[in-house]
Amino acid sequence: MKPGIPKGTRDFSSTEVARRNFIFNTIKHSFELFGFQPIETPSFENSSTLMGKYGEEGDRLIFKILNSGDYLTKVDDALLSEKDSNKVTTQISEKALRYDLTVPFARYVVQHQNEITFPFKRYQIQPVWRADKPQKGRFREFYQCDADVVGSTSLWQEVEFVQLYDSVFSKLNVQGTTIKINNRKILSGIAEVIGAKDKLIDFTVALDKLDKIGKDGVVAEMISKGISEEAIQKVQPLFEFTGSNNDKLNALADMLITSEEGTKGVEELRFVIENIQELELQTATLELDVTLARGLNYYTGAIFEVSAPKEVKIGSIGGGGRYDDLTGIFGLKDVSGVGISFGLDRIYLVMEELGLFEAVELPKPKVLFLNFEENESLVKMKAIAELRTNGIKSELYPDLASSNNQQKKQWKYVDKRGIDFVITDVDNGQFKFKDTKTREEKLLTIKEIIKIVQ
Amino acid sequence: MKPGIPKGTRDFSSTEVARRNFIFNTIKHSFELFGFQPIETPSFENSSTLMGKYGEEGDRLIFKILNSGDYLTKVDDALLSEKDSNKVTTQISEKALRYDLTVPFARYVVQHQNEITFPFKRYQIQPVWRADKPQKGRFREFYQCDADVVGSTSLWQEVEFVQLYDSVFSKLNVQGTTIKINNRKILSGIAEVIGAKDKLIDFTVALDKLDKIGKDGVVAEMISKGISEEAIQKVQPLFEFTGSNNDKLNALADMLITSEEGTKGVEELRFVIENIQELELQTATLELDVTLARGLNYYTGAIFEVSAPKEVKIGSIGGGGRYDDLTGIFGLKDVSGVGISFGLDRIYLVMEELGLFEAVELPKPKVLFLNFEENESLVKMKAIAELRTNGIKSELYPDLASSNNQQKKQWKYVDKRGIDFVITDVDNGQFKFKDTKTREEKLLTIKEIIKIVQ
Repeated sequence: MKPGIPKGTRDFSSTEVARRNFIFNTIKHSFELFGFQPIETPSFENSSTLMGKYGEEGDRLIFKILNSGDYLTKVDDALLSEKDSNKVTTQISEKALRYDLTVPFARYVVQHQNEITFPFKRYQIQPVWRADKPQKGRFREFYQCDADVVGSTSLWQEVEFVQLYDSVFSKLNVQGTTIKINNRKILSGIAEVIGAKDKLIDFTVALDKLDKIGKDGVVAEMISKGISEEAIQKVQPLFEFTGSNNDKLNALADMLITSEEGTKGVEELRFVIENIQELELQTATLELDVTLARGLNYYTGAIFEVSAPKEVKIGSIGGGGRYDDLTGIFGLKDVSGVGISFGLDRIYLVMEELGLFEAVELPKPKVLFLNFEENESLVKMKAIAELRTNGIKSELYPDLASSNNQQKKQWKYVDKRGIDFVITDVDNGQFKFKDTKTREEKLLTIKEIIKIVQ
Repeated sequence: MKPGIPKGTRDFSSTEVARRNFIFNTIKHSFELFGFQPIETPSFENSSTLMGKYGEEGDRLIFKILNSGDYLTKVDDALLSEKDSNKVTTQISEKALRYDLTVPFARYVVQHQNEITFPFKRYQIQPVWRADKPQKGRFREFYQCDADVVGSTSLWQEVEFVQLYDSVFSKLNVQGTTIKINNRKILSGIAEVIGAKDKLIDFTVALDKLDKIGKDGVVAEMISKGISEEAIQKVQPLFEFTGSNNDKLNALADMLITSEEGTKGVEELRFVIENIQELELQTATLELDVTLARGLNYYTGAIFEVSAPKEVKIGSIGGGGRYDDLTGIFGLKDVSGVGISFGLDRIYLVMEELGLFEAVELPKPKVLFLNFEENESLVKMKAIAELRTNGIKSELYPDLASSNNQQKKQWKYVDKRGIDFVITDVDNGQFKFKDTKTREEKLLTIKEIIKIVQ
């Protein structure tokens, strides 16, 4: 009976942990450089905090924790015999694992509103759990990396989030990302102009296929969804929607001139795009994309989505937007927020595919002292202490080799862990030092070794 | 209805996160310096992995996760009507939150035995969950920080763990810790000599009170527990158990001369103690303590416990020991292990009490640009980009002040977040720069500001 782990969960080896931490630390560093502060919330919340916040499907995917002790005694017999799992759940489970970081953050802001200085720029990097069907790249336990600002309506935040994406991906050396931006108000403006709010999703889905099926194909699909030819005529510019972001902004401004909200959206987008042009990005490209319609249920202003470099075929590696009423669900009204998220698992896959992990230092000793002679161990341990004081990872192979075979085992360990430098013997206060790459051997003092290894 | 969190759990503010990360990072750094590699395991395991490993009380304290979907349909009607919570749990819950890091580690080693290079020095810093009654300093979600070596019986590991404790606490500047050491084999030897294995705990508990109730008090308690006067006579030296570690070792050697196992224990302890004398500790003291009897159920060799500096009244801040058969429960026999653990929450309290957190840099901007003039914002954002490129945390106050009151609000923000340097206006390419401590104001270029702030 080989032991295993629940489906959709993962063990991480030390190589994987080191690579993941490289990504986490890069994100953290940029978050703090941009003035964001970390918070952490508990892994499980009261069910009342989470339930009803993610729609019916979300409620179903939340992992519920069974009450402790003799939890069944309190359950109504009649209810139990009905075997209605949903109803019984509310009686035998009061806590649930968090499903995302946004709802716990909203809860945190309301609960600690008197201790918080607004505008509150917070970041949070913690795991979340979803009872989703596991499949390639989708897990039941995964990390979210979120940065949000609450209590400010300034569009400079949107500008900063574009810079923040650029900062992180540049530092990760993931070059050629595209930060797509849209604005909910532009989508509302389009809906107004085509005269059908309920057709907005159909419209954007069809429009998104322009590259693949051409203008005629898109128009045909729109008509099949019940959008009138007259309406399509009004948003004609969207079918030749190429050129620079400025060209697009101008086309949108003309097209949405009759819609107050749409015009507002164009102004907001223009502010972000023009300021980013002035401030310049390092490796990312900002692209106005009117087909971007993620999070229409909650985003009220800017909408962001980041695409991986074109050579990697993978979905979005980040996203976010502005929401006008984050904390209202917990009774604190009129707090505007805007935030973005990084998709750790996808970023990991992108970096793996692009061979960007070679620069990540693995957690292994730089210098290994072999353990062939009992009377040399203490001298070696003293040398190791000196190396460690100088910040050099080093260790003594723990068990003394008392046979040729056991010596071989130690050399195999060197090989398997990919250790760069090995000390074999001690000779009159000097150490026999071997570079495993060049296979060169020298007799050196510990000071000389420190110099070489550093 | 103010929202809250489940009892026994905690929200962490950014100051708390920064302080906790300071401790985590120090521990991690030493772990890696000593050649340990990180692994991570899922937050929840199959119940079969965890149940039955921590005794009956442990089983009760494990948080169980309710199966997803319509979990009640599969439950036997008769069983349900019995309302036996324990029996029903096995039918409606297949997963549970991890209770410690040791059992998941054992599971990991067995599951990945073909990928692992032995001896395997792993560390793991992750939260665990226990449905314990919450009380001061005891939580339902808390972190464990463990380092273990499996696949080596070398006593150099014990030596290294003493050094590792000393390394971490010295770097944290927690001076004056006492690393207590004992050996299970010595306790077995004592039990042999007093002729009563089952009285060992009573014996050590009584002996531990020597300082408080004196020799006569201790003897009286022992007799009341059923230990014979003759037996007590045989371990007489333990009542004058003062002096150096070497004195104690000699006394033990004499006392346990008739016990083979006890004599082995003395030898093992002597190895660790003498080598530590040679290698020297930075700030900790190693102390042989024969009353140390933690983990008697599983430790088979060395036993460790770390006491906080004497001026702080708190229990142990770390502990560990050697166990001969960690992975046997999952079918991999004869793998010896030894490991230690750091108690994060207690270390936090100790550092707080000793005022050691002042050195921890808080996550806040070093330079804040006030936002009083709309036409200055872009110039300020360009300056901020330059500061960030130079690694200086900085930000623009997001919202433009359009009244005196709103200006005051920005100054209040500076005050509340304790920001050191503020830029007010831009004047001909220079910035009005204010040091909030000295209240000095200067007109500086961005290059000059970078120089001052760094």
